Amino acid sequence: MKVRECLENVLPYVPGKTEQEIKEEFNLEKVAKLASNENPYGPSVKVKEILNMETNVYPDNYMNDIREKVCEKLSVDKDCVLFGNGSVEIIQMISRVFLDAKDNIITQIPSFSSYFSEAMIQGANVKTIKYNSEYNFNLDEMLPLIDDNTKIIYITNPNNPLGTFIPADILEEFIQKVPSNILIVVDEAYYEFVRDESYKSAIQFCKKYSNVCVLRTFSKAYALAALRIGYIVASKDVIKNLEKVRVPFNVSSTAQKCAIAALEDNDYMQETVSNIHDTIDYMYEKLDELNIEYIKTQANFIMVNVGKKSSEVVKRLLELGYIVRDGFPLMDTWIRVSIGTLGQMQDFIKALEEVL
Amino acid sequence: MKVRECLENVLPYVPGKTEQEIKEEFNLEKVAKLASNENPYGPSVKVKEILNMETNVYPDNYMNDIREKVCEKLSVDKDCVLFGNGSVEIIQMISRVFLDAKDNIITQIPSFSSYFSEAMIQGANVKTIKYNSEYNFNLDEMLPLIDDNTKIIYITNPNNPLGTFIPADILEEFIQKVPSNILIVVDEAYYEFVRDESYKSAIQFCKKYSNVCVLRTFSKAYALAALRIGYIVASKDVIKNLEKVRVPFNVSSTAQKCAIAALEDNDYMQETVSNIHDTIDYMYEKLDELNIEYIKTQANFIMVNVGKKSSEVVKRLLELGYIVRDGFPLMDTWIRVSIGTLGQMQDFIKALEEVL
Repeated sequence: MKVRECLENVLPYVPGKTEQEIKEEFNLEKVAKLASNENPYGPSVKVKEILNMETNVYPDNYMNDIREKVCEKLSVDKDCVLFGNGSVEIIQMISRVFLDAKDNIITQIPSFSSYFSEAMIQGANVKTIKYNSEYNFNLDEMLPLIDDNTKIIYITNPNNPLGTFIPADILEEFIQKVPSNILIVVDEAYYEFVRDESYKSAIQFCKKYSNVCVLRTFSKAYALAALRIGYIVASKDVIKNLEKVRVPFNVSSTAQKCAIAALEDNDYMQETVSNIHDTIDYMYEKLDELNIEYIKTQANFIMVNVGKKSSEVVKRLLELGYIVRDGFPLMDTWIRVSIGTLGQMQDFIKALEEVL
Repeated sequence: MKVRECLENVLPYVPGKTEQEIKEEFNLEKVAKLASNENPYGPSVKVKEILNMETNVYPDNYMNDIREKVCEKLSVDKDCVLFGNGSVEIIQMISRVFLDAKDNIITQIPSFSSYFSEAMIQGANVKTIKYNSEYNFNLDEMLPLIDDNTKIIYITNPNNPLGTFIPADILEEFIQKVPSNILIVVDEAYYEFVRDESYKSAIQFCKKYSNVCVLRTFSKAYALAALRIGYIVASKDVIKNLEKVRVPFNVSSTAQKCAIAALEDNDYMQETVSNIHDTIDYMYEKLDELNIEYIKTQANFIMVNVGKKSSEVVKRLLELGYIVRDGFPLMDTWIRVSIGTLGQMQDFIKALEEVL
């Protein structure tokens, strides 16, 4: 993959050493960090009421503890992971590393708006393929769109907002057809919710193909959206270049610490996912009864065809206290409904019935 | 100020409405947010042990509460402020909005490395002026460096690492000499520590000159470095363009909430600053006694001339358990020492004496 030329002389930020590092290196019990102009007295008691941790010290810029945890879980090398202020910040980093004004990316319609905006900010063009009659994508339609200036292909798997997915064998066949100088970014934000057995994470492909990388987030199944932490698994070379554009201390200490706690209680996460699966089954049943079209989902949301201009339905639902999303390209009569608790969805179904 | 052309068609991210907004708009008691694919069950109890707040819901992307608090405190318009994941993220945003490959910025040597790296990532050049015999800057030396491609001037005030500052009247004279199509960024990260009465914040100039903006942070005096939040005060037009490149939800809920708590306990912050002033006076006294050169500081760090290659001194200090910073351009025999507690500095002085 060709990196933008102006990055050649850019060096990553080098933070001051941490107290822990110096303690270990010189076998010291007490270390004073007088290197980062932090306030030694700590924050107000009002802050301490919110947060049971040290806030005056900068985060670990290398993110050693959460890195270790994630790498162990995924069996990937420590140099093959990078964390972002949400995975959306990593999309920004990817764009800044690879995209110049003459370049283009290829992605799906519909998919995540930040692929588009981050490419546009670099001055790059966006080429797209549309969903097919099964509300899924034929990735091979991307192949004729590839030219010498194509730098990135984004695939959201499972897709947001459709909820459909590309099986692992089909994804690998596609990867093999794409020139190896094009970065293939598989966004697995909804990975933990997938039930279909023909789905497999593309992390296996990161290890096999140096141009494949995977985005993951703690915002969805792990319920840490408020804290902002996501990560990418990629080749060492891609990570090394992303490091050049990563702003110092981009992931807060809170996010790092809570992500570790969340990973340590994986059973709880699985339990909530299982509840969401039950609630999705309830939604299928009720939408079938009401004869309302929907797309079977592998994520924690469901696309529902309300059969008329979605903006009107959304407005009526808002008045009843239900916030759902519309405005997806090519899907004028569809709304995307996140899967809440069973109680919330029972009430929502009643509201939807009333509105339609 | 001329914005990069490719931003013309970029629109800021539009998040789903918040529960609070809908409650107020439709006068509802109960609202279900089914718009952002959040996990309705919340995080693991292990996360709750760390953090006494909701983590499963995305942060307020408009940052209404902290915005209100900051704007009230500074008497600035709500449209004239933008928050970042640390003020360093705002330096990134400024660079992405204004800098193309043919452009250049002007700044001081030494100053914050991110001004340089963020410009270089955009492909832009960096022009610099050096400090004078008083370890301060003659800003007028920047004027002959200005050309048609100069887009940004960065002034750190007080300067990091020098600790010296530009008085308000001199800064305003300089502003008046700079063409109004060049953005002047005054980085006031250490604003709260300044004692000299001829210093005044440049926020007054933001209101008077549309090309002046000010960076502030909660990482230093407010002791929230771990949480990552800073802000910029600028003209509505500058803010509107920065919004185009801001990634969604760039400031965590924790950072927003704790910044409010920190501002509400301003007395505590002032108290810690007052302690730091006392400790700086102690340092002056001791360094005078030891006949060691230093620069009088308006920040919470002090530059000390160790009179020999600083890297060797830094290494010896590390072995004794003191992390300080060196490696500043043009300052091969200097170390920057953050002001810790009085006890830490008493011990540090002994260690320094031993090493020198």
